[in-house]
Amino acid sequence: MNVLRNLKGYKLLLASASPRRKELLAMLGLEFDLCSGKDVDESYPEDIETDEIAKFLAQKKADAYVKELASDEIVITADTIVVNDGRVLGKPADEIEAKTMLKSLSGHKHRVITGVAVTSKQKQVSFSVGTDVEFATLDADEIDEYVSVFKPLDKAGAYGIQEWIGCIGVKNINGSYYNVMGLPLHRLYTELKRF
Amino acid sequence: MNVLRNLKGYKLLLASASPRRKELLAMLGLEFDLCSGKDVDESYPEDIETDEIAKFLAQKKADAYVKELASDEIVITADTIVVNDGRVLGKPADEIEAKTMLKSLSGHKHRVITGVAVTSKQKQVSFSVGTDVEFATLDADEIDEYVSVFKPLDKAGAYGIQEWIGCIGVKNINGSYYNVMGLPLHRLYTELKRF
Repeated sequence: MNVLRNLKGYKLLLASASPRRKELLAMLGLEFDLCSGKDVDESYPEDIETDEIAKFLAQKKADAYVKELASDEIVITADTIVVNDGRVLGKPADEIEAKTMLKSLSGHKHRVITGVAVTSKQKQVSFSVGTDVEFATLDADEIDEYVSVFKPLDKAGAYGIQEWIGCIGVKNINGSYYNVMGLPLHRLYTELKRF
Repeated sequence: MNVLRNLKGYKLLLASASPRRKELLAMLGLEFDLCSGKDVDESYPEDIETDEIAKFLAQKKADAYVKELASDEIVITADTIVVNDGRVLGKPADEIEAKTMLKSLSGHKHRVITGVAVTSKQKQVSFSVGTDVEFATLDADEIDEYVSVFKPLDKAGAYGIQEWIGCIGVKNINGSYYNVMGLPLHRLYTELKRF
């Protein structure tokens, strides 16, 4: 695609080990390289607002890469969290915790927040986007089947909306679908267009 | 996936030429065969409610297949329409009409309705699901680029939400994402579970 001419002359980098984020960014029709491997501590201040956590972590990830950027490079970093009844759900430690998380999401509405930072040597733009997701009531054997087949231990909230459980179980979303997958594509495109 | 045990002993058929619908149904983890090739006239009565058109067409497609069903077969038929400002948008006739349709969707909210019929020799369940989709304002060159690269002439409303234009241009959806692609997966799963 012949898009985002304002970025001609720049090299776009995606700092993420997530194959989903790589797929998502590719859907914008942009060329980019991957970089990853920095071990960023994903803790955040206790008194931070829940809505700010994902953006804070995206900025923290950017901090790890910015020193090594060339002057023509732009790096994209992101973090996704799931907030259910005021509780932040990260990645489950094991299959038992994954099942507990899915039980807590079953029959409820929760919020998925992805924070993104777009960073060059000269400047940084960061933002976060929230999407409301409503799960139908899931049967125990649907949860068991999903967790044992898909092993969602690398996913905040223990599910991928694009996987089987998202297809059978998500009743409704309000916001951006791609944001739930890991990148708010429309907003990211808009921010890159004016970067 | 070990799911929908109530359908054991039945053969599921998807009557559709759409590769998207095939992908979507496969995401439910079900085994099914494809059948297609019946030339169904997609007209509908002039006095029908807009909300009923997609379901009416799904039923009409089912009528074309039901006579040939074996007693252990269940056929799924579907139709998707786009409703913008009270006007029903079908598939564009050519690239010029595709661009006109996208211009009319740009900066507005529209509704995508998919009607589905699940039909055996003994019974039929049919339903339709609506999803609201809000497009950001699209530039003329974004519309031109999309239409000339993706040639969306096989798509109601001249766009695929899973394609480039959906990634850069869709600000918000309220409802089911998969419904916009062509099958309301959660609802279909629920109806198959109790069929």
